[in-house]
Amino acid sequence: MTDILIRGAGLLGTSLGLALSQTGARTFLEDRDPGAVATAVGMGAGTDADCPAPEVVFVAVPPDQIAREVAAALTRFPQATVSDVGSVKSEPIAALAAVAADLSRYVGGHPMAGREISGAAAGRGDLFEDRPWILTPVADTDPQRLAQVSGLAQSTHAVVRLMDPDEHDRAVALCSHAPQVVASLLAAQLLGASPADVSVAGPGVRDTTRIAASDPDLWAQILLANAEHVDAHMSRFADDVIAFRKALVGGDASGVRALLARGVEGRGMLPGKHGGEAADFVTVSVVIEDAPGQLAALFQRAGEADVNLEDVRIEHTLGRLRAIAHLKVRPDSDQRLRESLVTGGWHLRG
Amino acid sequence: MTDILIRGAGLLGTSLGLALSQTGARTFLEDRDPGAVATAVGMGAGTDADCPAPEVVFVAVPPDQIAREVAAALTRFPQATVSDVGSVKSEPIAALAAVAADLSRYVGGHPMAGREISGAAAGRGDLFEDRPWILTPVADTDPQRLAQVSGLAQSTHAVVRLMDPDEHDRAVALCSHAPQVVASLLAAQLLGASPADVSVAGPGVRDTTRIAASDPDLWAQILLANAEHVDAHMSRFADDVIAFRKALVGGDASGVRALLARGVEGRGMLPGKHGGEAADFVTVSVVIEDAPGQLAALFQRAGEADVNLEDVRIEHTLGRLRAIAHLKVRPDSDQRLRESLVTGGWHLRG
Repeated sequence: MTDILIRGAGLLGTSLGLALSQTGARTFLEDRDPGAVATAVGMGAGTDADCPAPEVVFVAVPPDQIAREVAAALTRFPQATVSDVGSVKSEPIAALAAVAADLSRYVGGHPMAGREISGAAAGRGDLFEDRPWILTPVADTDPQRLAQVSGLAQSTHAVVRLMDPDEHDRAVALCSHAPQVVASLLAAQLLGASPADVSVAGPGVRDTTRIAASDPDLWAQILLANAEHVDAHMSRFADDVIAFRKALVGGDASGVRALLARGVEGRGMLPGKHGGEAADFVTVSVVIEDAPGQLAALFQRAGEADVNLEDVRIEHTLGRLRAIAHLKVRPDSDQRLRESLVTGGWHLRG
Repeated sequence: MTDILIRGAGLLGTSLGLALSQTGARTFLEDRDPGAVATAVGMGAGTDADCPAPEVVFVAVPPDQIAREVAAALTRFPQATVSDVGSVKSEPIAALAAVAADLSRYVGGHPMAGREISGAAAGRGDLFEDRPWILTPVADTDPQRLAQVSGLAQSTHAVVRLMDPDEHDRAVALCSHAPQVVASLLAAQLLGASPADVSVAGPGVRDTTRIAASDPDLWAQILLANAEHVDAHMSRFADDVIAFRKALVGGDASGVRALLARGVEGRGMLPGKHGGEAADFVTVSVVIEDAPGQLAALFQRAGEADVNLEDVRIEHTLGRLRAIAHLKVRPDSDQRLRESLVTGGWHLRG
């Protein structure tokens, strides 16, 4: 039986304890907050007993403590493989390299999983299922240690990918950190708005600012740990903001249009469903009444028509007790779904 | 019977023709493109016959032609009330005031309705149902003409609101135009990204850039027509980008945190469902298989538990043929829904 020590009994540490103990590993939990450990142990994430010789240590502490915790674990357990779950990789590795002579036993990791709430009590054994878990080996990394951590990650049903630490940090800066900053700064513009100003808010501003509701403390740490890559993206973004304002104020229609067209093209770079190519789906919009069972009946009807819904978005309409469901389907299902809904008495919408 | 002339047989003009002719009005369509008129007439949006004396003229042309078209209609039909459907109001009114001696017969309007596709063939008689239709009377506006347009708008089942033109333009700059610019410029950052860079894209960047897929030609016109208000918001936004970058590069954790916290607060300014206050909902996340009928069964179960779903978001997971449905419910329904789903064999997710 594999002995695994998890340092940090927050959302990720507790979830990891739950997931790994389900696979038969023996998990040990440590946290400077005894209450967090007690909660995690009570949930079945592991034991609070001493773990004198773990085979693997997972460091699951806040971003600004990762390097120190990994270095301490490498010293404390001279045989153990040490990994972490931090969302930024280069900076902790550089900090580690400055204090640890040998990084062969360290395997950097980033399970891309989370919840809107944090803490041990939010832990779930299925948190990592189907999620990317990126491992960032360096030249010194022992391939057997890498395989060991990869096997544990896969045992949680995560999808393991290997990336260079810097490549990882650049990618998350682009696809996660810069969007977080932009959404937050855009949402901040709503401060001080009058009720009349926000009364015209529709689905666009809602979607664009959704992630602005994230935890500022955690995100400040993440962004600062990846400051160089984030700022590189924000610098290019800021240049585009300047170029846009210049075109706008100068009445340069083709300049404004060209910048918007770049956005259309950039949006098309995002991979589609299931990590494949972006697909063209057709949207069918249906009126739903604000009552239990309406969505159920709608989706049952779609199922009866043998139509697979690729995506669903619910839009609440102004001051009325009804909503519009926007259903995305493959083009070859479009007509079948429309006919089935109309004959079922549903009200399709433009 | 009221005779209504609609100038412009695109998405909005055709939809307006369909909606108003359903209420018993006689609608006449004109467009410089005879094919658009033929399509609209074929759909039942009205007739292409001459309309010598309309009671109301709706101008439904692209933004940069509105002022000229409204002025022409006021001259051509000296008794008619003239309205429009443009999404920016102050600039056309100023342009009109410069050429028309009397604006008492003009009632500016902005039905906040649209589709992802354009053109006559995309027209729908229910396009305006439950949507805000903002009317922007000025000091000169004849109250009876205002009531006349308001009545017609309400007959399409839109929700009519009166706003000052400048107040309207400031509000849409904040809640629609600035988010469009920011989403487009953010999406443009994805250009030139490698497949590895975008392989880590998750729901956050997708939501933040969704509206970047909009039509650059139409949006360039809208933004230029509202340049002053849009630039005022973009100027404040640009200041925040500069402040953020300074805090980030300077390692100023409390500065970074404070800017993110402003985003959390700003996001909370958006009105909640049905135009009411933003409500705190609880999210229940459920694994759904990628097969017809799964969503139906899920929502049926929720309906049987008498739980009203406030919102639904479908998240596709990486490289797997399944997805996660995030269901938002009122806090007092949370436990009931979870129990019902678990006993029904559903797999809840963190």
